[in-house]
Amino acid sequence: MPSCKAASGFEQAIAVMRPYRALLFDVFGTVVDWFGSVSAELRASGLALDPVAFTQAWRRGYGPAMQQVRSGELPWTNIDGLHRRILDGLLAENGLVPGRDLSEAQAADLNRAWHRLAPWPDSVDGITRLKRRFVVAPLSNGNVSLLVDLARHGGLPWDAIFSAELFGHYKPDPETYLGACRLLGLQPAQVLMVAAHPSDLRGAAAAGLATAYVPRPAEQGPGGMMEPWTAGEFDLVAHDFIDLASQLGA
Amino acid sequence: MPSCKAASGFEQAIAVMRPYRALLFDVFGTVVDWFGSVSAELRASGLALDPVAFTQAWRRGYGPAMQQVRSGELPWTNIDGLHRRILDGLLAENGLVPGRDLSEAQAADLNRAWHRLAPWPDSVDGITRLKRRFVVAPLSNGNVSLLVDLARHGGLPWDAIFSAELFGHYKPDPETYLGACRLLGLQPAQVLMVAAHPSDLRGAAAAGLATAYVPRPAEQGPGGMMEPWTAGEFDLVAHDFIDLASQLGA
Repeated sequence: MPSCKAASGFEQAIAVMRPYRALLFDVFGTVVDWFGSVSAELRASGLALDPVAFTQAWRRGYGPAMQQVRSGELPWTNIDGLHRRILDGLLAENGLVPGRDLSEAQAADLNRAWHRLAPWPDSVDGITRLKRRFVVAPLSNGNVSLLVDLARHGGLPWDAIFSAELFGHYKPDPETYLGACRLLGLQPAQVLMVAAHPSDLRGAAAAGLATAYVPRPAEQGPGGMMEPWTAGEFDLVAHDFIDLASQLGA
Repeated sequence: MPSCKAASGFEQAIAVMRPYRALLFDVFGTVVDWFGSVSAELRASGLALDPVAFTQAWRRGYGPAMQQVRSGELPWTNIDGLHRRILDGLLAENGLVPGRDLSEAQAADLNRAWHRLAPWPDSVDGITRLKRRFVVAPLSNGNVSLLVDLARHGGLPWDAIFSAELFGHYKPDPETYLGACRLLGLQPAQVLMVAAHPSDLRGAAAAGLATAYVPRPAEQGPGGMMEPWTAGEFDLVAHDFIDLASQLGA
């Protein structure tokens, strides 16, 4: 805020509307379209599998795999490693044997489809607008190198990269949200978590962060379901990042 | 490299010239001009002190303060905290008492001069060119929020922010260089450390990274000295980041 002149009524109203200093973004599904990108790569792979069902099953394996890490059943394993474990299981279920039906190099490359996910159409423009007024960074369970690759692939103009990998905990563990706030030198209430997933936002709210819900109804592909939520549960609800930028005066 | 067509001789030559995937940059003195920026803020502060000598003494306190952390004499303290310890000592030496000669808010703001350092004239253009071909990130002893502020202040287009703070060790401890390589998912030999300080590059080389020396003779201000080095000691020597980009075919 200017220190040497009085703020106008409009500026004051905007300042009240945006007490935040930084916005943290969930990435898979919130910023990027994993379903569209991964299913397209599977379709192009020439492998004898159903791209839609395979993509959905791959993603469904992700929560339980992270839970195995969160519970201590598995030692710390980054998302690349978890994606590969799930991929190998799904290939086997489909009767596809690495070394026979596809090369190890092809399997490794397929696993890196998660490094090449396309942003939603509003993501780059919305984050670019928000960056004018706020620090913008991902806070994702994806590992750092995956998030760097996604940013370079999609042109996401992040100020920093925050990942569960930095904290040795996966969201929604509080260590992730509080760790990002600490690295930013901010109080949790100065930080707005942006996500398409109510469960993620509830974890952020429990750690003291503000929350913005941006539903992405197409996230899961055909027949996909959305997590239930309650009106008034989150500080902000926006239908995309352009709308979020407008609501925040950015 | 393209997999489906033969590389031309020129492409092969460039590939040999740049086996690196990522470039890590020292920041204070290498990317930004701390002397020019801090001395200008001190000059503008109206405080009764010699801006040149005060700036140089502030920076001279930095190495010993980090050494106190590295040796365990001090618990982990980020650079904001170390800068403030040194500032308070220097203010006292100059007979300036916070609360009497300057407000606590002014002292805190002065300490944040290190968040507002201007890039060298070639920094933004050079890093922007290098980013086309390589992942580019700082690897600095500065804390994360300081590095984010510097990037936003100067328009530095980093892909990620790597700080000693993430590793609980200051450079030249090997944990810093190896930690950044691990987060990038790269072998140390795939990563080029860029710095104006031979001691930093020697730490990187000891950890297995490649090294690029970019001397910044004006770094220390009037009468400033440069660390000695030996011809042939580093993998690359460039006179600025534009020259570095050209040498790396970026």
